[in-house]
Amino acid sequence: MPHAGELKKVVVLGGGTGLSTLLRGLKNHPVEVTAVVTVADDGGSSGRLLDAYDIPPPGDIRKVMAALSDVEPLIEKMFEYRFAISEDLKGHSLGNLMLAALTDITGDFASAIQKMSRVLNIKGKVLPAANQRITLHAELEDGTIITGESKIPVYGRRIRKVYLSPQEVEPLPETIEKIMAADLLIFGPGSLYTSILPTILVPAIRESVLKCKAKKVYISNLTTQSGETNRYTASEHVQALYDHAGAPFIDTILLNSLDIASLHEGEGPPWPVENDVEAVRALVPEIVFKNIATVVDNMILHDAEVVSEWLMEYIGIH
Amino acid sequence: MPHAGELKKVVVLGGGTGLSTLLRGLKNHPVEVTAVVTVADDGGSSGRLLDAYDIPPPGDIRKVMAALSDVEPLIEKMFEYRFAISEDLKGHSLGNLMLAALTDITGDFASAIQKMSRVLNIKGKVLPAANQRITLHAELEDGTIITGESKIPVYGRRIRKVYLSPQEVEPLPETIEKIMAADLLIFGPGSLYTSILPTILVPAIRESVLKCKAKKVYISNLTTQSGETNRYTASEHVQALYDHAGAPFIDTILLNSLDIASLHEGEGPPWPVENDVEAVRALVPEIVFKNIATVVDNMILHDAEVVSEWLMEYIGIH
Repeated sequence: MPHAGELKKVVVLGGGTGLSTLLRGLKNHPVEVTAVVTVADDGGSSGRLLDAYDIPPPGDIRKVMAALSDVEPLIEKMFEYRFAISEDLKGHSLGNLMLAALTDITGDFASAIQKMSRVLNIKGKVLPAANQRITLHAELEDGTIITGESKIPVYGRRIRKVYLSPQEVEPLPETIEKIMAADLLIFGPGSLYTSILPTILVPAIRESVLKCKAKKVYISNLTTQSGETNRYTASEHVQALYDHAGAPFIDTILLNSLDIASLHEGEGPPWPVENDVEAVRALVPEIVFKNIATVVDNMILHDAEVVSEWLMEYIGIH
Repeated sequence: MPHAGELKKVVVLGGGTGLSTLLRGLKNHPVEVTAVVTVADDGGSSGRLLDAYDIPPPGDIRKVMAALSDVEPLIEKMFEYRFAISEDLKGHSLGNLMLAALTDITGDFASAIQKMSRVLNIKGKVLPAANQRITLHAELEDGTIITGESKIPVYGRRIRKVYLSPQEVEPLPETIEKIMAADLLIFGPGSLYTSILPTILVPAIRESVLKCKAKKVYISNLTTQSGETNRYTASEHVQALYDHAGAPFIDTILLNSLDIASLHEGEGPPWPVENDVEAVRALVPEIVFKNIATVVDNMILHDAEVVSEWLMEYIGIH
């Protein structure tokens, strides 16, 4: 194993379950992991906290921190605990409350995350894509504007683009440093419009992604998401990334080679992402096929170990 | 410094600010500290949590844990943080919420404390006097019965006795083991009726206190407490301890030799505890006078370092 100073640097951008799953695999490998996490979540406990404390919603941050933590399972469980019994606490997640308290104490959301990271013994670094409150908006193909991350998927019509307000949001300087110094940038898996794209909608992040020397990988989702990417093909995912970045930038796409239908009982959703290989080839220099799906609790998920192993091979670590 | 196995064993019984102050001093000395903490608190955030989760109120436990913790100050601040802004969280202490969540996860209040103790890097052991919900009642001299720890001090009439319901509450087996193996038991400083006495109202704790071979010290309060010990003398404090234990048991009392009035500007409360030495001598074999008071933020408090140093001398540690 190389010395800490020689570790390859991997930056993962996004949020949600997809990113967390991947990070649970990646953290066991000898790389320096940085997660740049979207803060455009506005739902549930996060939303209510937002109203009271002027902080970015900690929902995605919390999941990513739990994924990268290396503490006894019980402490992670406490961090992820959601109050269900008490009337006034109902729906609040304890991890969000801890982050809100630390933000109030330190005066700064990013500092709160760093302090919490030490308690949770985080393997790597978690950085919010923005250190302020931002709102995600979607413009649908019919021109409708939807405001708020949680409301975007409920309309079911195709999304033309997403954007942030305020538009001139600044990332943390460290985020740009990490991207510029990275050996590998990873996009996906995860919600395309509400988890992955919001990170590169931050102008300085978008610029550094396009400018940096890192290899850039997109890991395909296994299934399309209701209301967000209904029946999207693989190439349509990539095209949306390019449209929002303003230029093509993915070096390699990892596509799922397993027949999802075989994992999935019955008909109807979730619909697999169709591998329209010819269209993808026109957008991405390198295509890799791998059996990256697994079924956990009747849900089709990425096999974090298979994906992580492949990523290690990809950057030359065996 | 002796090996861990040779450390003298000190058990402190009570709760509240008095106990916490003492423990902040004691934790820096080479002794094995166990705090047996009253759980008869029913006020504030604790009370509301109680209504929803069937756990003993964690208020006193939380303060004692913070006092014994050895983590960076920020983590202790987080544990002690009280929500003030958000409407539905107002008044809730984050430490109480963490203990409630861990109790729900582990299924057991005592286990929750042990898990939390590891996160806070507790120097010593914190044990709840009971692992269940108990209620403290007071019978006043005029026969009135008052129910609930927080309501007891508001009447302002003399208290004849306090008692618990249910009466047949069991302590943790470990509490009895710690008391029986102790070299030193410490009572006080702290609220006589609402912090100290509730611990020995647990029948098995009372029996082990009377039976164990440890030296027993009572550390006198500096001032009397409004509604609880109005104008009580030192001997009246000791007499209340004996009345509730069913027998005399204090070997040594530490009395304050400093003129409190000199620390305290203006007239009126808080009233100093009067050292009625002749009456005390009839109750306690050994009386020690020491300058144990200090003023912090205009409050008269025990000087934890002076008291701890004396306790170390008392059990033969220099």
